[in-house]
Amino acid sequence: MPITPDAAATLTPNAHMLGQQGSAQALNTPALVLDLDAFDRNLTRMMDHCKASGLGLRPHAKTHKSVEIARRQLAAGAVGVCVAKLGEAEVMGEGGIDSVLITSPVVKEDGIRRVMDLNGRMADLIVTVDNLDNAQALARAASPEQGGSRPLKVIVDLDVGLHRTGIAPGEGAAELAEFVAASPGLKFMGLQAYAGHLMHVEDYAERREKSLDAMKQLGDMRDMLRERSISCDILTGGGTGSWDIDPEADILTDLQAGSYLFMDTEYNAVHQKSGPEQAFETSLTIQTTVVSANTPGIATTDAGIKSMATDQKTIAIASGTPEGTAYFLFGDEQGGLAFPDKDTGLAPGSVLNLETPHCDPTVNLYDCYHVVKDGTLVDIWPVSTRGRSA
Amino acid sequence: MPITPDAAATLTPNAHMLGQQGSAQALNTPALVLDLDAFDRNLTRMMDHCKASGLGLRPHAKTHKSVEIARRQLAAGAVGVCVAKLGEAEVMGEGGIDSVLITSPVVKEDGIRRVMDLNGRMADLIVTVDNLDNAQALARAASPEQGGSRPLKVIVDLDVGLHRTGIAPGEGAAELAEFVAASPGLKFMGLQAYAGHLMHVEDYAERREKSLDAMKQLGDMRDMLRERSISCDILTGGGTGSWDIDPEADILTDLQAGSYLFMDTEYNAVHQKSGPEQAFETSLTIQTTVVSANTPGIATTDAGIKSMATDQKTIAIASGTPEGTAYFLFGDEQGGLAFPDKDTGLAPGSVLNLETPHCDPTVNLYDCYHVVKDGTLVDIWPVSTRGRSA
Repeated sequence: MPITPDAAATLTPNAHMLGQQGSAQALNTPALVLDLDAFDRNLTRMMDHCKASGLGLRPHAKTHKSVEIARRQLAAGAVGVCVAKLGEAEVMGEGGIDSVLITSPVVKEDGIRRVMDLNGRMADLIVTVDNLDNAQALARAASPEQGGSRPLKVIVDLDVGLHRTGIAPGEGAAELAEFVAASPGLKFMGLQAYAGHLMHVEDYAERREKSLDAMKQLGDMRDMLRERSISCDILTGGGTGSWDIDPEADILTDLQAGSYLFMDTEYNAVHQKSGPEQAFETSLTIQTTVVSANTPGIATTDAGIKSMATDQKTIAIASGTPEGTAYFLFGDEQGGLAFPDKDTGLAPGSVLNLETPHCDPTVNLYDCYHVVKDGTLVDIWPVSTRGRSA
Repeated sequence: MPITPDAAATLTPNAHMLGQQGSAQALNTPALVLDLDAFDRNLTRMMDHCKASGLGLRPHAKTHKSVEIARRQLAAGAVGVCVAKLGEAEVMGEGGIDSVLITSPVVKEDGIRRVMDLNGRMADLIVTVDNLDNAQALARAASPEQGGSRPLKVIVDLDVGLHRTGIAPGEGAAELAEFVAASPGLKFMGLQAYAGHLMHVEDYAERREKSLDAMKQLGDMRDMLRERSISCDILTGGGTGSWDIDPEADILTDLQAGSYLFMDTEYNAVHQKSGPEQAFETSLTIQTTVVSANTPGIATTDAGIKSMATDQKTIAIASGTPEGTAYFLFGDEQGGLAFPDKDTGLAPGSVLNLETPHCDPTVNLYDCYHVVKDGTLVDIWPVSTRGRSA
């Protein structure tokens, strides 16, 4: 669905350049730039892989935060999308996305009220729990006496080693699943197991071994529930780091990968089965412009701490600078270029593109994607759930 | 100007709690919480200080990004506000703020067009330059033949040691000022000198000595221009780290402090003349909630990399946890609490507040301030220029 010029103008000063040949180099910056062809190839590659593996794809929309991209993923065959937070689910719902799994617990009283409101409006909302108190609070809010129009779908989140969210596999988890399955307002859907601590293990063999172990824990828990006559329609987890390992484990019903669409410096360091070359392309970059260049050997750009995630050690330059140039943060508003020698430089106005250091929190800083094809700005996609962390 | 309920509801799921007693602890989180009383005391203290010192206050709105706060600063006596980027100036203009200094250069062709558009709508827009090519481009755009309704006000940015933006004091800077002063469409207003590299020097005596040296460079440049019959109406610079040093130097006409309103972990480490106790209070915190607590000794909150600046070494807890608890980042969406021992903990639903690690880039992650007084949510202020980095 193409964005209207008025809507685009509220998101970026570059809206008026839409469709102008060569506009991709004339943008007001910093700007998040998405290479449409590379994006499409990534989208297709993961979808084809899942279809060939008999695995559903439930892509994590915490990465892209975009209703438009969620639509494209669903159109390509995804079974639904994941979000990390309730606020994201609400925006996805407003945008017409009707199958959303919230992968983190919602524990506050007002949050549970919002979940029930959203469940009344969304065909296929699924929440996760890892704690009996929370499940009881959901059961009370969803009880038939409260007049909810449909049961609330619930997945039990398992901790397979990350210790961030989830309940350890075993008796406690089984009791939690039994409680959910027995609650009239709730509908038990299955299990989630996300091994987030393994996604960026750079060595493939090590990552494979640990990922298969995490999947075995999930499989054992599924079997334990089966013995108690509780069946799991959904076994969800995995990510871009385990995309070609999870099919081998053959436990998951669907894969929660997100970063594969864009890639970033963090994931580009993670080796594939075949070696260091990546299976997915870097489709997302940060475009920035040199704004000052009065000191030999360095130059100042317009992209600093406010324009990219700063949790990575290095900021990789994708294009636009002399060989050997390094990028550094030069404060909240600016970046710096350190050239290989004092006679090398770039004048103010020069344009360069950075690899996204870490895609999820970088996307969260921007109002829109500048979608580019063959050097032309061809579309503007809102980052619809930007900042919706609550 | 109080926000309407509809406008507030687009910014936060907490809008419906406005005015409810005790609501400050019931918020959907993560939420940026501003203590109104502490904020007001900071606002007044800096304004009184500037008045007593005979210094104007031109507070930097890159910190707060809020039209509402800019209005309050101007009402208290500020001479105007600073912003870092053109996109911020445009939003301030739409909000009725009519005196704005853009402290970074605008170099792109489309940016210069936007500057001229904004100059037609804003009574007192001032831009900065540090480069002759850029000054020439501005002069062309602002030339009387282009039909601009008023001359474009320009300040020459001096590099007093940070090497980020600015031109070194001396002949080149004088020529740049002369060019601006002689250009029919431009109006030379004076000099900017921001010693950003000194603001966080923790030792007071060292910071004082270096700051006074930076101010001396500015004073010498002013005198050099005076000899060429160019006078400076504005000599602008300084910050929260030099707030009580700059009056001693007696060079600046106005102070660009921003962080004093909120304070943060970074500035709380900077010693005052009187010692480690701060002159300004920590008025801004990040409220977060425990969402999972299944592993002894740790708990998981809902505020991670997407909810705070991550360029500081430590994340300080302001309130709500047992003595000895440490906060760590647990991924994009979550934080972690490491308790002093395995028998200590907090249950899901527990609320805590973090000191803002670094206020400017943290504010830039949120859509609004939750303004709190005596435990009640009393107002919602939009972060009007959030993400306007281009």
